[in-house]
Amino acid sequence: MYGYTMKKSELQTRLRKIEGQVRGLQRMVDEDQYCIDILTQLNSVTAALKAVGVGLLDDHVRHCVRESLEQHQGDEKIEELVSAVARFVK
Amino acid sequence: MYGYTMKKSELQTRLRKIEGQVRGLQRMVDEDQYCIDILTQLNSVTAALKAVGVGLLDDHVRHCVRESLEQHQGDEKIEELVSAVARFVK
Amino acid sequence: MYGYTMKKSELQTRLRKIEGQVRGLQRMVDEDQYCIDILTQLNSVTAALKAVGVGLLDDHVRHCVRESLEQHQGDEKIEELVSAVARFVK
Amino acid sequence: MYGYTMKKSELQTRLRKIEGQVRGLQRMVDEDQYCIDILTQLNSVTAALKAVGVGLLDDHVRHCVRESLEQHQGDEKIEELVSAVARFVK
Repeated sequence: MYGYTMKKSELQTRLRKIEGQVRGLQRMVDEDQYCIDILTQLNSVTAALKAVGVGLLDDHVRHCVRESLEQHQGDEKIEELVSAVARFVK
Repeated sequence: MYGYTMKKSELQTRLRKIEGQVRGLQRMVDEDQYCIDILTQLNSVTAALKAVGVGLLDDHVRHCVRESLEQHQGDEKIEELVSAVARFVK
Repeated sequence: MYGYTMKKSELQTRLRKIEGQVRGLQRMVDEDQYCIDILTQLNSVTAALKAVGVGLLDDHVRHCVRESLEQHQGDEKIEELVSAVARFVK
Repeated sequence: MYGYTMKKSELQTRLRKIEGQVRGLQRMVDEDQYCIDILTQLNSVTAALKAVGVGLLDDHVRHCVRESLEQHQGDEKIEELVSAVARFVK
């Protein structure tokens, strides 16, 4: 339904896959594979992590921020959210 | 009060400064200045643009998203917000 | 021939276009356009700046770094290059 | 001596630490920890990965690219390097 929403089980599946990719990087370094190939693999791990980050953010806005705002008590939540995004985009 | 909030006048001031910095980059290229120095300047323009982006996002959440959520009609706004953040962090 | 190489004139053309896009952002803010649309435009300015950065880097490696290395005097240039990339990817 | 140079053993140590951090993320998700805290942790994993990427790049320039250039056969290597950096900065 919503493109970025991930259930807890999907977050876990993705994080386990990322863990496997990081072990793959160790193997590539160990086997002295070509730097550029390792870097390409590393870029896809970073992209996978960012996708998990967006999923977490989605979940956060959809639950915590929404709840606070619906109760007209959202100022702190908004501040916290924007500051998390600010660190995320750096 | 909130660290990322920018009034319209502040957004404009920052964008005018960024415009000046981009003209500065043109001058540096024109004068054949050292690549690494131009790149350093270019990085600070990118960082300044991202800061404006965070300011816009802050404003958006604080007004549009909040209003929709307070009226319990926020699903579409949340989807749109998360998808904007997803493009922003890439 | 090489995908990232930009002549000085192309760098200038791109930077002038970026300057125009930054003025476009000012207009959008001035006309109170929708935040998400401004953010989308801002993202494309950032991407355009990064492309210029890659063009500068390409030029730098192709000339300064190459020349130093061909004269077996490249240690400092390499250090400087990697440190510029490190700031660039942040 | 050079700030970004990492020996194979250091790359491995860092990648093992990153693997542990990814497992830490799984635990945080599993324990339903606060989204913003998980996101903060995820940001530091991404930063750690980028640092490894810069280390790999440093190694690559310092060896492969240098060797090719010293033999006046570096065009392809430069193209490959710049294209790797272009994907990296995205």
